[in-house]
Amino acid sequence: MRPEDTIDFPIRKVWNRIARLYNNQAGKYGGTMAIGQVLLSIDPDGTPSTKLGPKMGMEARSLTRTLKNMEEEGLITRVADRSDGRMARVLLTPKGKQMRDVSKETVIRFNEAVRAKIPAGQLQTFHSVIDKINTFLDNNELFK
Amino acid sequence: MRPEDTIDFPIRKVWNRIARLYNNQAGKYGGTMAIGQVLLSIDPDGTPSTKLGPKMGMEARSLTRTLKNMEEEGLITRVADRSDGRMARVLLTPKGKQMRDVSKETVIRFNEAVRAKIPAGQLQTFHSVIDKINTFLDNNELFK
Repeated sequence: MRPEDTIDFPIRKVWNRIARLYNNQAGKYGGTMAIGQVLLSIDPDGTPSTKLGPKMGMEARSLTRTLKNMEEEGLITRVADRSDGRMARVLLTPKGKQMRDVSKETVIRFNEAVRAKIPAGQLQTFHSVIDKINTFLDNNELFK
Repeated sequence: MRPEDTIDFPIRKVWNRIARLYNNQAGKYGGTMAIGQVLLSIDPDGTPSTKLGPKMGMEARSLTRTLKNMEEEGLITRVADRSDGRMARVLLTPKGKQMRDVSKETVIRFNEAVRAKIPAGQLQTFHSVIDKINTFLDNNELFK
């Protein structure tokens, strides 16, 4: 099985390339792709910090440093949740909202440009294959 | 555009999950996914170090630390190329070959299991969409 024939290798390779594009673009605004992705995962009325990881498909601990940096840079604040004081809620600051708009614009421009090159039916199959891989991973007993 | 509707977000999310699976598995043998991926990108007769990055879709500098670790752990050696002494060639040690076999086995098991869940035609479309994204990235003038 050559790497190109696997499912994971092409996913990783194209993801690395998209990440590079996003990082280059974020760098122009003093950000990083990781920061942009977190900004885009925070709802306008805030998001519980424990929900950010699952929303992004990441483990909480991988997010910790990024969230700390973002707080220090004044992009987010963390406040106790109104209904459950033990829970932290991540909120965007005005600066965070501005950066979120820049990130959103970048994502939309990239996605619209790519979409224009791919027939809708193929795109649908593409998403359905990813769903199937996710379902497989949810129920994975392979390496238990 | 919700994150789920973009092309990049599902790619990143599923890649993070596959990476977690591979990292967990590599951890059982004292390795990491990054090391496994490099091992799988080295040909039996060695690979020029400058070709490893492009082969993996990574920038050379992102690989430097992994290669250094791998050398220290006795998985690879770096020798001057026979035909061009200025060029370094990365070779697998016997320990590296053994670890390469373990990585290969993991990749094959994962891929065969996933493949069994996805019709061949859908898989073909999936690869073709990734090719189209790569072609777009090759010729990308979006953020110039």
